[in-house]
Amino acid sequence: MTSIAIGDQILDLSSLTSLLEENVPELKNLSNVFSEPTLNKFMSLGRPIWQATRQYLQQILSENDSTLRDNIELKQRALISQKLARMHLPANIGDFTDFYASKEHATNVGTMFRGKDNALMPNWSHLPVGYHGRSSSIVVSGTDIVRPSGQISPGKDQPPIFGASKKLDFELEMAFFVGPGNNLGEPIPIEKAIDHIFGVVLMNDWSARDIQEPFLVEGPKQDPTPLKYLQDTGPSAYDIHLEVKMKSNHCKSHVTIANSNLKYMYWSLKQQLVHHSVNGCNMRSGDLCGTGTISGGPDAINGGPNKSPLGSLLEITWNGKTKIDINGNKRTFIEDGDEILLTGYCTNENYLIGFGECIGKILPTYK
Amino acid sequence: MTSIAIGDQILDLSSLTSLLEENVPELKNLSNVFSEPTLNKFMSLGRPIWQATRQYLQQILSENDSTLRDNIELKQRALISQKLARMHLPANIGDFTDFYASKEHATNVGTMFRGKDNALMPNWSHLPVGYHGRSSSIVVSGTDIVRPSGQISPGKDQPPIFGASKKLDFELEMAFFVGPGNNLGEPIPIEKAIDHIFGVVLMNDWSARDIQEPFLVEGPKQDPTPLKYLQDTGPSAYDIHLEVKMKSNHCKSHVTIANSNLKYMYWSLKQQLVHHSVNGCNMRSGDLCGTGTISGGPDAINGGPNKSPLGSLLEITWNGKTKIDINGNKRTFIEDGDEILLTGYCTNENYLIGFGECIGKILPTYK
Repeated sequence: MTSIAIGDQILDLSSLTSLLEENVPELKNLSNVFSEPTLNKFMSLGRPIWQATRQYLQQILSENDSTLRDNIELKQRALISQKLARMHLPANIGDFTDFYASKEHATNVGTMFRGKDNALMPNWSHLPVGYHGRSSSIVVSGTDIVRPSGQISPGKDQPPIFGASKKLDFELEMAFFVGPGNNLGEPIPIEKAIDHIFGVVLMNDWSARDIQEPFLVEGPKQDPTPLKYLQDTGPSAYDIHLEVKMKSNHCKSHVTIANSNLKYMYWSLKQQLVHHSVNGCNMRSGDLCGTGTISGGPDAINGGPNKSPLGSLLEITWNGKTKIDINGNKRTFIEDGDEILLTGYCTNENYLIGFGECIGKILPTYK
Repeated sequence: MTSIAIGDQILDLSSLTSLLEENVPELKNLSNVFSEPTLNKFMSLGRPIWQATRQYLQQILSENDSTLRDNIELKQRALISQKLARMHLPANIGDFTDFYASKEHATNVGTMFRGKDNALMPNWSHLPVGYHGRSSSIVVSGTDIVRPSGQISPGKDQPPIFGASKKLDFELEMAFFVGPGNNLGEPIPIEKAIDHIFGVVLMNDWSARDIQEPFLVEGPKQDPTPLKYLQDTGPSAYDIHLEVKMKSNHCKSHVTIANSNLKYMYWSLKQQLVHHSVNGCNMRSGDLCGTGTISGGPDAINGGPNKSPLGSLLEITWNGKTKIDINGNKRTFIEDGDEILLTGYCTNENYLIGFGECIGKILPTYK
């Protein structure tokens, strides 16, 4: 069942099928998409239909409109308390790609592992680097995560040992869902990229720093002049305020450990999508693309005095060298029972749009 | 519709629903799985049901059994010429992982790009390295492939240019489908891995050598002693003969360019699956895992006089340094209109089991 969040309630769009049929001509014979268990079909319908639907929903949710306001029976059916609803993933995610598009984050990580002079890989400035990920592992906010185990290196020239990760981290990310897809072999041009992006969500890319294998990508060292197929006109970044909070097992309240903003991403969502399809790779409605860790702003490079705009503990604690304080508990990486909460919003004089919460807790490793 | 190949025909299992219900107790109330468009549900049912089904089908296909042999009406319904059938992917593939498990292949590629002394990355001998891939890009045998375009490096210290791949290659692989999956956070132990492997297929991993980004993975330099969770008892390799044939646009017949065998893989299918799930990654029925390029046997390292056991043109032509002859046409990499055909079989005194054909042709890049 498709719903949208409004304050502390959700609006069940499947209750509005006949209203939508009557009032949104673009949805003629299509309003049953909101009764489907996922948004994949609605995502595939394209921007004009998303816009017409959004416009009508904004209208009936405004105080001046009587459609919903004065229809008590409909209101009772369609508006449900968020507390009573169980959230699901919005789409059946066919494929998942995670980009690495924040220059500050890439510079920090590169400096830690390769030194200041080789911080950015040569090809980083020429294309948005992306890694394919497992769509099976994407879970809805609030899902507990078992601490991962794997091969861990005790030190240089020593054999690996098997055990639970001791350097478990979060990564502050956002992700976009693909709207209409493209055929295998037919790239998406930059001028049309925005029509293929359905919307963005908060994402926490849980990360075992001592188990995962860092991937290095090669290319020529050059100034950053994007090639023509990646050149875009007009503004393409989004000003979305992001906050990371952390809570230990023994405390009741969360402590803010990072503030960032989606606008700091070096490579835009459009460029990520275009680069992803340029070799003919087919995207499908509901596919998900993560931005990579978002560490933003000039203070975000190499730690610096103000560490708040850093989107991972790897950077905040500079790979465990310094500690942060969570209500009296000292942390380098994530311990069992710790909870990470991501929030985000954008605002201007007229609007405040929230992205809800993305929350998860770490459980001990599986024995 | 589910079917199995038998000679130049296919047997439609959905025509045998009532026979299967009556004769395979394990399939009670389940035989409708063969009317589904994919094998995902059958894959999820587990090894005892696969084995009971296979056993019964082998029985009714034997010359001594009258069930099918003497029932002309059923034979006409259930047995269909392969030429009249249109093949589909056997499963809805949720996720796709491609391993890098052939030691000869990894040594050849490493020697080409990093020199003989650093041919194998330090962690290669400790774990089966795998890369996540796009399940959307997996197509059925016979699908034409548009030549990919992307950023190409004209040389060291030169800026990248945009264009169609000039170094298009095939990769001889096999791949296994996952049977029953596992829950997020609960690894599959090596003793149970075989129960989670449904079966293997031929796979051609089309590869643009000048566009793709080589991934490097790090780990300690040590002798190859697998950690306990990867230790297996008994034989775990499969003796499957593999052959690669190539045809140019102007010729009618294919020319054999490589012979290899799945038994040469350093890391077994079981070890690949176990390592994939050891950090808690959940596998789903129908997920696909590729072996990586299969270059086998002692002659397969560093080219050598006999280049036939090499599973890619990258190795056969040593990154374009030598040419091969395809019916009078010289080739380093794949040209537009070229066709690659993979075949495979295993045999002993009693059986000859074929893996069919995996065929594809390259079309010019998209303008």
